Amino acid sequence: MPFIAASDVTRFSPEKMTKTNFFDCPQMVADIYGLEPGQSQKIHSHAGEAKLYYVISGKGDFTIGDETRTLGPGEIAAAPTGIDHGVSNPYDDRLEALVVMAPNPNLRK
Amino acid sequence: MPFIAASDVTRFSPEKMTKTNFFDCPQMVADIYGLEPGQSQKIHSHAGEAKLYYVISGKGDFTIGDETRTLGPGEIAAAPTGIDHGVSNPYDDRLEALVVMAPNPNLRK
Repeated sequence: MPFIAASDVTRFSPEKMTKTNFFDCPQMVADIYGLEPGQSQKIHSHAGEAKLYYVISGKGDFTIGDETRTLGPGEIAAAPTGIDHGVSNPYDDRLEALVVMAPNPNLRK
Repeated sequence: MPFIAASDVTRFSPEKMTKTNFFDCPQMVADIYGLEPGQSQKIHSHAGEAKLYYVISGKGDFTIGDETRTLGPGEIAAAPTGIDHGVSNPYDDRLEALVVMAPNPNLRK
């Protein structure tokens, strides 16, 4: 599946934020995250992976290390290995973000 | 530089397509590509890296393997390791794309 539209991937759930994978290989995994208003991804870090978030639509509060910024469409947050990161959507609109992690964390499992 | 707007990164050149790096670590490199009408990235492959393109604005003809598709904003092309890929912009508008490669190809140099 080499070609895809992000809008065909994005899912939302009333239960919790969603991560919908659309590309998975040893070198990287790419997902679309969907966060309804009020949903969040808890701040965490990865021992061996870097992560990049690109906001497609909506806005969210992104934390990288000890800094939190509100990002909207076309804005990016990037977390090097070992750096705390997370996102929350306290706003009125749905947040849709492209998220790439490298390498594939399942390699470590 | 954990936070950035893609629009602050993108550059265009009358000479050839541009790749402007904004995140560089051992696990991944992330660039914004800028292609003026008529510019292209020749089809090529990487022995050890996977690559993902996300179209921010404009449109382009993306090749993955032996398939070429015209992609516009919000559309994605993904090339696993060893698969031919490239992009050309034969259209009237500038093409701006987020491109993530993993791992960092400079590790091999």
